[in-house]
Amino acid sequence: MRNIRLVIAYDGADFHGWQRQPHAPTIQEALETAIARITGGPVKLYGSGRTDAGVHAAGQVANFETLCSIPCGSLLKALNGILPAAIRVKEAEEAPVTFHARYNAASKTYRYRILQAPICPPFLARYVYHHPYPLNCRRMAKAARLLEGEHDFTSFAGSDPANKNKKGQIASNVRQVFKSSLAVRKELSLVVYEVRGSGFLHHMVRNIVGTLLEVGNGKLRPEDLPAILEARDRSQAGATAPACGLCLVRVEY
Amino acid sequence: MRNIRLVIAYDGADFHGWQRQPHAPTIQEALETAIARITGGPVKLYGSGRTDAGVHAAGQVANFETLCSIPCGSLLKALNGILPAAIRVKEAEEAPVTFHARYNAASKTYRYRILQAPICPPFLARYVYHHPYPLNCRRMAKAARLLEGEHDFTSFAGSDPANKNKKGQIASNVRQVFKSSLAVRKELSLVVYEVRGSGFLHHMVRNIVGTLLEVGNGKLRPEDLPAILEARDRSQAGATAPACGLCLVRVEY
Repeated sequence: MRNIRLVIAYDGADFHGWQRQPHAPTIQEALETAIARITGGPVKLYGSGRTDAGVHAAGQVANFETLCSIPCGSLLKALNGILPAAIRVKEAEEAPVTFHARYNAASKTYRYRILQAPICPPFLARYVYHHPYPLNCRRMAKAARLLEGEHDFTSFAGSDPANKNKKGQIASNVRQVFKSSLAVRKELSLVVYEVRGSGFLHHMVRNIVGTLLEVGNGKLRPEDLPAILEARDRSQAGATAPACGLCLVRVEY
Repeated sequence: MRNIRLVIAYDGADFHGWQRQPHAPTIQEALETAIARITGGPVKLYGSGRTDAGVHAAGQVANFETLCSIPCGSLLKALNGILPAAIRVKEAEEAPVTFHARYNAASKTYRYRILQAPICPPFLARYVYHHPYPLNCRRMAKAARLLEGEHDFTSFAGSDPANKNKKGQIASNVRQVFKSSLAVRKELSLVVYEVRGSGFLHHMVRNIVGTLLEVGNGKLRPEDLPAILEARDRSQAGATAPACGLCLVRVEY
């Protein structure tokens, strides 16, 4: 049995997220359908994790097992030949049989882009969150850095029925955040938040961004962040920022 | 009566072109509907010209007459508040009553972008033509320059029932091309063709690009261009390049 590792980019705007659903187009379903057509049999694709409806990826990682003997280079070309243009397989390669895209992931990097301009060009509208109001980015950057380290991120966790351990108990909401930084790219009118962590709870990045936006508009102060983490109470943090600004940049192993 | 001039950008991928049609979403229809809601009455919007289904614009110009007294700045904000994100009004200003976006246009500039890379990132797929095969861009650039000047562009004209004069006779296919140049932006893997002309026949830019692609792949030579123009025969030129690579950059008055 071969184990094939894929690196995938997608424009999530027209999909209902990564995970297969009965009556809505998803990335996983589009990929499984394409792989099955090329390899000639039903296939189960394991992603590094789910992405929400509307969220993009530049480097999602997934793997699947197959008995098909097609070389990886031909597989990549064949998949890109039948997949919608919104989904591209960037890499396809043999992986050890023990490789699992989800269980072996050491960390993930997400990027959230906020456009700070009076008018959002139509060519960016699918890929950024348009926020035309003033933001104090220096304070947002200071707040962002306070999330680095090991914390219980309950205050930033959407309710997620899947976040349970094997016994059906709610799993820990403690995660390691290795990097949490916000930068201004003035020439592009963009505010870019980048976060790398051991794993992310449901809606965690978008809830962090929603909270940073409240720091940016003065409703919160950077020094409020430790107390918000400490509270382990979702209502203490900001709203969930829109999906369109978020991109899964890469998965590290 | 006020005459309002708009500059409009749009992502044409999900629209059936500029011109209003009975059973398909178009840019003109979306704009007329939005303007009517804001100004409180039916409105006729005059564009500088039609763009085909899937073609984009960074600076389309249009005008409409209204008795409504809303200031231009408020009009712009109100329109962008109700238009789909794929259509943005970039400018709105008072124009002389004699101004007509189509009849007063002195020239237009179009840009066509060809992505020369093995894989087209999903975030570019709507906005470029993906052509992963080798192209001799030096020869394409040479051919592009040979189209500058006043020529009969019948060989590059799609059949267009609208291209008739007031007596119902087929209008002239002679056009002035002020600039026709092709450049390689290697760092972006893009080949960019830009053309500015007094006016363009139906499909003319896309037919020029289809012909330049045949020069790029060796089927035609740059020195074949004068004979193709001279022939006034559509079958002598290349195929119509896909709409997605084309953008109406600006209209000059």
